[in-house]
Amino acid sequence: MAFSFGFYNDIHTPTLLLDVSRARRNIASMAEKAQRSGVRFRPHFKTHQSAAIGEWFRELGVDAITVSSVEMARYFAAHGWKDILIAFPVNIREIHKINELAQRVHLHLLVENAAAVAHLTEHLVAPVDVWIEVDAGYRRSGVPWDDANLTTLAHQICECERMRLRGLLTHDGGTYAARSKDQIVSAYALTAERLTAARRRLHSQGFERLEISVGDTPACSVLERFDAVDEIRPGNFVFYDWMQVEIGTCTPEEVAVVVACPVVSIHPERNDIVLYGGAVHLSKESLLQRDGRLTFGAVALIEKGGWSAPLPNVWVRSLSQEHGIVHAEEAAFTKLAERIQVGDLLGILPVHSCLAADLLKTYRTLDGERLAMAPIPGAN
Amino acid sequence: MAFSFGFYNDIHTPTLLLDVSRARRNIASMAEKAQRSGVRFRPHFKTHQSAAIGEWFRELGVDAITVSSVEMARYFAAHGWKDILIAFPVNIREIHKINELAQRVHLHLLVENAAAVAHLTEHLVAPVDVWIEVDAGYRRSGVPWDDANLTTLAHQICECERMRLRGLLTHDGGTYAARSKDQIVSAYALTAERLTAARRRLHSQGFERLEISVGDTPACSVLERFDAVDEIRPGNFVFYDWMQVEIGTCTPEEVAVVVACPVVSIHPERNDIVLYGGAVHLSKESLLQRDGRLTFGAVALIEKGGWSAPLPNVWVRSLSQEHGIVHAEEAAFTKLAERIQVGDLLGILPVHSCLAADLLKTYRTLDGERLAMAPIPGAN
Repeated sequence: MAFSFGFYNDIHTPTLLLDVSRARRNIASMAEKAQRSGVRFRPHFKTHQSAAIGEWFRELGVDAITVSSVEMARYFAAHGWKDILIAFPVNIREIHKINELAQRVHLHLLVENAAAVAHLTEHLVAPVDVWIEVDAGYRRSGVPWDDANLTTLAHQICECERMRLRGLLTHDGGTYAARSKDQIVSAYALTAERLTAARRRLHSQGFERLEISVGDTPACSVLERFDAVDEIRPGNFVFYDWMQVEIGTCTPEEVAVVVACPVVSIHPERNDIVLYGGAVHLSKESLLQRDGRLTFGAVALIEKGGWSAPLPNVWVRSLSQEHGIVHAEEAAFTKLAERIQVGDLLGILPVHSCLAADLLKTYRTLDGERLAMAPIPGAN
Repeated sequence: MAFSFGFYNDIHTPTLLLDVSRARRNIASMAEKAQRSGVRFRPHFKTHQSAAIGEWFRELGVDAITVSSVEMARYFAAHGWKDILIAFPVNIREIHKINELAQRVHLHLLVENAAAVAHLTEHLVAPVDVWIEVDAGYRRSGVPWDDANLTTLAHQICECERMRLRGLLTHDGGTYAARSKDQIVSAYALTAERLTAARRRLHSQGFERLEISVGDTPACSVLERFDAVDEIRPGNFVFYDWMQVEIGTCTPEEVAVVVACPVVSIHPERNDIVLYGGAVHLSKESLLQRDGRLTFGAVALIEKGGWSAPLPNVWVRSLSQEHGIVHAEEAAFTKLAERIQVGDLLGILPVHSCLAADLLKTYRTLDGERLAMAPIPGAN
């Protein structure tokens, strides 16, 4: 095999490589920015789902976290985290596990409809903090920012002594459609304005000292100051990914993970390379690049101590369950074919690192160390 | 909660429901067809990845199987399967595990380039059967059907005494683009013609008694006879899915799995329902339906003993990591909103059942029984 440095020799199947220095830099940079801005940093742990990586945040003084499921909250609670926000609308079918958690950690729940609040009112056995999810225009979940139901919901929450209304929370997934910093800044400004208006209205109705929590990685990465908000909850920034590079949120040098995939075939007749690495490793998340190409990932060479910059005019053109097909323009293919052979590894910068990490479950650092992720919750 | 029949009450998170009768019927029907056609039935187990479900095939006399990875071959070998084809181009980085398997089962490998054959020649320690993967036009992997390299590769294989050249194998993923039985039948005819031509050419060069193996679920489901081939390897048919319904391969009543997802919110102002059920449960596989809608799954009511027919004009319009957003046309939404409430379950017919099963890892039968899937191989 062409390359044989370090532990790469014992990589046999698609493997998530983690550049610890990059991830730690990403974390430190976001933590410092939050501190400079005077906002609480409550990072979303759904991206890495790893107790070991969580410790890198803890070393920087982070003690409040965000997760996306009750199971994930249980996992991090078991690893010593005491202040946990589940940033997903309360699923009342999990009330028993919610109650169990509420009795041992400072638990924050997200609500956005009367039915869930009524269920909590009836069944909660311990105090929780409650955030109303506000839809600032993304139309995923949340009460529309200008909807009168916000007030109704606030009243309903305050009627239950076990629930303390903490504030308004949003996730502006709309910034993922941006393709420049200006677009992200404008999107953030609109979101902040709408949340501020909602808070002002609630304030005028007697709901005082409500906080505002925002979360998306594009805005949190690009903004230098967070006017009008009290808390930020970015998650993806710990690794970033090819989508964030295309959005303009980060540079390729800030992307902290690649999926190392064995080359199983090289097809010069169609400028394709077949990888062992498919939808069960990278997810089917795709991205329409600025150059008009639909990609399932960018491609880098695996090198001693890490990986190269993404190769220009080379991309993952399709994925099936286990196959990844890398395609290259003529000149790029010729150059690449000179450098790799069957049995080598190529590094794929995933379109969406959260999903790739969730699929691969184990990190391999550039020193060869294995970092585990949360065990699979297991279906019911 | 509105419904409370049977074990559904203890479903709290997105859960893969399996209608065992449907799956068994799908298996029996394919097995009978193979027998009628006089072809070997070597089902692909990558869809279900479950030793328990494998037994249902064994009961019908199946003793030869297909898998998509070395790890999956090890799993089924550990569960008593003795004749296993790994239908993925040999990944030479896994040679040690391949050798270990070759010593205890009748192992079939897939090759499509000289580098892999050379590596096998040098390193194989036990006899294996070898199939040349032929690209009949799909352009994923394989030697093009009309390429002179087919002959070169056949010679190279026959020079190694540990490799027995068994035949030509293809996967025609092109049938997934079909939207009618006629299109599938035409695609199959072309594939069979190309493979037959390739076999004839090899025969004239002295390679005799080569078999032909084909695999895709659309063709295997729609065709009544398999002219010109010796073996069929369909996999998805055990469960089918919404993609197969749209292709015209099966009816909705033949789909044997749904993902039961808790309803966490209902938004009449935009005809949306928010589900706990996202990309980490269903995968991001999407489908452009015949009606022009982009869907991430069809939607059914969970009912006693199973689920309803897919609801017309209701579909999963978007997925993020944990959220699924179901959208409905006005009249359909009104009707649906009368029947469900927050805390109920909806059943999502996945676009691609192989990926949903791979993500959820555990089946729940309609009697509440849990069937396990292959443990995660674990990254290196």
